[in-house]
Amino acid sequence: MSKRNSLQKRLYQIIFEHDTWEGRAFDVILILLILASVAAVMADSMADISARFGYHLYVLEWLFTILFTIEYILRLYSSPNAGYYARSFYGLIDLMAILPTYVSLIFPESRFLIVIRVLRVLRIFRILKLMEYVEEIEVLRSAIQSSWRRILVFLTIVLTVVLIVGSLMYLIEGPQAGYTSIPRSVYWAIVTVTTVGYGDITPLTPLGQALAAFLMILGYGLIAVPSGIVTIELGKEKQRRRRLNRVCPNCNQHGHDQDARFCKLCGAELESA
Amino acid sequence: MSKRNSLQKRLYQIIFEHDTWEGRAFDVILILLILASVAAVMADSMADISARFGYHLYVLEWLFTILFTIEYILRLYSSPNAGYYARSFYGLIDLMAILPTYVSLIFPESRFLIVIRVLRVLRIFRILKLMEYVEEIEVLRSAIQSSWRRILVFLTIVLTVVLIVGSLMYLIEGPQAGYTSIPRSVYWAIVTVTTVGYGDITPLTPLGQALAAFLMILGYGLIAVPSGIVTIELGKEKQRRRRLNRVCPNCNQHGHDQDARFCKLCGAELESA
Amino acid sequence: MSKRNSLQKRLYQIIFEHDTWEGRAFDVILILLILASVAAVMADSMADISARFGYHLYVLEWLFTILFTIEYILRLYSSPNAGYYARSFYGLIDLMAILPTYVSLIFPESRFLIVIRVLRVLRIFRILKLMEYVEEIEVLRSAIQSSWRRILVFLTIVLTVVLIVGSLMYLIEGPQAGYTSIPRSVYWAIVTVTTVGYGDITPLTPLGQALAAFLMILGYGLIAVPSGIVTIELGKEKQRRRRLNRVCPNCNQHGHDQDARFCKLCGAELESA
Amino acid sequence: MSKRNSLQKRLYQIIFEHDTWEGRAFDVILILLILASVAAVMADSMADISARFGYHLYVLEWLFTILFTIEYILRLYSSPNAGYYARSFYGLIDLMAILPTYVSLIFPESRFLIVIRVLRVLRIFRILKLMEYVEEIEVLRSAIQSSWRRILVFLTIVLTVVLIVGSLMYLIEGPQAGYTSIPRSVYWAIVTVTTVGYGDITPLTPLGQALAAFLMILGYGLIAVPSGIVTIELGKEKQRRRRLNRVCPNCNQHGHDQDARFCKLCGAELESA
Repeated sequence: MSKRNSLQKRLYQIIFEHDTWEGRAFDVILILLILASVAAVMADSMADISARFGYHLYVLEWLFTILFTIEYILRLYSSPNAGYYARSFYGLIDLMAILPTYVSLIFPESRFLIVIRVLRVLRIFRILKLMEYVEEIEVLRSAIQSSWRRILVFLTIVLTVVLIVGSLMYLIEGPQAGYTSIPRSVYWAIVTVTTVGYGDITPLTPLGQALAAFLMILGYGLIAVPSGIVTIELGKEKQRRRRLNRVCPNCNQHGHDQDARFCKLCGAELESA
Repeated sequence: MSKRNSLQKRLYQIIFEHDTWEGRAFDVILILLILASVAAVMADSMADISARFGYHLYVLEWLFTILFTIEYILRLYSSPNAGYYARSFYGLIDLMAILPTYVSLIFPESRFLIVIRVLRVLRIFRILKLMEYVEEIEVLRSAIQSSWRRILVFLTIVLTVVLIVGSLMYLIEGPQAGYTSIPRSVYWAIVTVTTVGYGDITPLTPLGQALAAFLMILGYGLIAVPSGIVTIELGKEKQRRRRLNRVCPNCNQHGHDQDARFCKLCGAELESA
Repeated sequence: MSKRNSLQKRLYQIIFEHDTWEGRAFDVILILLILASVAAVMADSMADISARFGYHLYVLEWLFTILFTIEYILRLYSSPNAGYYARSFYGLIDLMAILPTYVSLIFPESRFLIVIRVLRVLRIFRILKLMEYVEEIEVLRSAIQSSWRRILVFLTIVLTVVLIVGSLMYLIEGPQAGYTSIPRSVYWAIVTVTTVGYGDITPLTPLGQALAAFLMILGYGLIAVPSGIVTIELGKEKQRRRRLNRVCPNCNQHGHDQDARFCKLCGAELESA
Repeated sequence: MSKRNSLQKRLYQIIFEHDTWEGRAFDVILILLILASVAAVMADSMADISARFGYHLYVLEWLFTILFTIEYILRLYSSPNAGYYARSFYGLIDLMAILPTYVSLIFPESRFLIVIRVLRVLRIFRILKLMEYVEEIEVLRSAIQSSWRRILVFLTIVLTVVLIVGSLMYLIEGPQAGYTSIPRSVYWAIVTVTTVGYGDITPLTPLGQALAAFLMILGYGLIAVPSGIVTIELGKEKQRRRRLNRVCPNCNQHGHDQDARFCKLCGAELESA
């Protein structure tokens, strides 16, 4: 890293970090550019706007692409390990933000490229990570991570119920009510158990309606389970962080282990909460 | 404030405060007038009622407007700082409650004025603030305030998912299923992930239905996250208030700091909860 | 009460109480009769079943009515205070369970009487109160009672949002999209914010869809608030009951006050949780 | 059990247990086979896939059936008590996984047999029980078990509300809006209160819409009750397990009773949480 010249270091500070005012200004401008470019892609997909402002949006797209290309090159240049950056998750997202426009020069514009363009929005999370939101993300991530096994078991149960009830509805209602196959019936069961309820497929027979009502009440009640799991885990996560931030009431020493009962310096009893 | 005469002070007590029985009576009458005037605006928007009772509702509207105008003038008159009141949030709401009717004398009645009239309902919150509900509002507000950053991160994640899944559906289903543009597909994705499920746009292909099912289950599970966040914050807020209301078990002194461990008067240990 | 003969006392034990096996048997039979009679009313409202089994259901209805009439007379007879029973909530429900059938002899059968018949189902709650479920009901009732003010404030906020957004949609979308009046637009807003989403009225313009999306996300997030409130109150209610059931670790004395810190008999410190 | 030969014991280890690597490999292969066979049944129910790949799916179905038959015979052979296994819940599920294909040789293939085939998916839970997910299932099961009475009371209240509101809507809206019978109106009320909202039946009159709006807000608020119940129970269950895993701070002895306050070996005070 000592080989890097001062320009590289300076650029790294501005582009990758968040500590200087230039770094923060860069982040804010980048967020605005990303949002504007995604808005342009979305606007371009609307037939009437595309018909009227198609040319302006085309110019705008190239402007964003050139700006993001310059940014990408600067990132490669200033990064202490360009190869590592290029292969990282955010490096690939950065590349995917500029590639579609160049590809569209060779191949005719396709709908597929539009979706890749939308993935630019993922770049926002890198900036969020830099900003003060990192702890908030960390708490949520940690709570979900420590409860994912319980959520997986819950999902397996829900999907099994959905599969069995969907198959029963395929038997009870049949094709005339729209339950033309088991996958479609299972799709209906998921629409019902999650309380989405499109109404594109609905039971017509009293027996089918009774089974549907059972599934609705089940879904209505089962929603309590992930709520309970996440609430408990968030509470534990908060308590864990509170314990780690405890201060000794006697000598004001902090940095005690989570399960410490006494101050590691003066032996005074620590608060339990 | 010493320059104000006794009539101004008396009116201030009745109109702005809630401590005397006249003040409370004024508040109850005002709430009833506000609700009645909003009900009249709503009734007037219904074609059949407007055709039959249009004249009566017109008279009623002017009656409410005159009453609210008198109230507004009295508020300006009795307020210790009329300019400050006129520019305050509730002052502007009060003005907006009377302005549309006068404007409709000059310009022909428009639908836009109806909506401004409905904003009268916001005046109820001033009265709620006066009444005993202030602590309840405070607890809710405080719990939401201390969790808004976590909720913002949660919302950013949900909106990113919705944007990506919406774009994918635009690619998979296309215009024939109603996914005519990315904004419309994102609208569908929000309808789905929040489990609203209008059914005005629904996936038709098996692949689209599978992606929709994934989005539903995600929305069904993700609802646990704000639940967990708000529950934890409400619990903390309640505990904070309980700690502030602690009484020393030895000398019955109250008013201890939230983080106090010993009574500030006699030194006896306080309960922790 | 000493004037009541032994038959009255015996009947009271069986009909009103739940301590003897006859009392419990009476309750079980009564629950089955109530459910059967409600099922008969429901079946009779279905056109095809009514056409085929109308006569049987008519006979069955009279059988239930006569049985419930006998029960009502026995309740009046065995009750220590017949007048008090007759005017009580459950006394009126009992009367409403038999009256419609007799009224239908004089006036032709009307749909209104059917709904009154369905109210028979409320009689089940008296039996639930007798059975061991009383504490469960009590915990739920107590948690809801101590949180109703916070829920009222929450509801006022939601209804205000719904009123304003509904009026805005009336302005934005107008009659061609089904928003024909403010009450109907408010109905749509309630359908949306509660995540029900019938889809009978849906926004058609991009601006309307954006506002609808905002309302959906608000409703999706706001559901966390009642969840949080009820969870906290249920937790407090449980803790209160646990504190009331504390046993002194020294002398095994129970029945300590909720806020007691020391045993009222031997002075030993009680557990806090 | 001593009479069983070493082959039986070896097979039992592989098929019924999860401790050896062969046992774990067997479980993973079995899960994949079950999922593949259920996927084949689902694919076969889709008209276009069945038309094109019907023969391949038929062969595949027989392949799965033969494999599951061999597995069933091996389970019977290696089980220490074959009769007990055959009559157990999972024994019957195993039998139902192979029976439909053989029955279809005698009787023509019916839709009913398809649903029985889908029940194969239940076999996954035996394997989950074997794997490390057993504690997760146990926590969920235990939390639901200790709250089922409160949930039952809650369900009774919800179903009573749904029955009464459904009957009122039958009275208010009548057949022209789709409320053709009380059971159908109750079905609508369940669709509404659980916030599913198909939109296949919707109120048309202002009074009906007002009652529907009330039911929606009730359902939106009531969802907090099961959330609260399950959260509290999950929290208690976690605490109970934490108490059982407590270690004495003095002598490191573990295995203390849930309600123990002092170490059973050295008498040191245990932590309360």
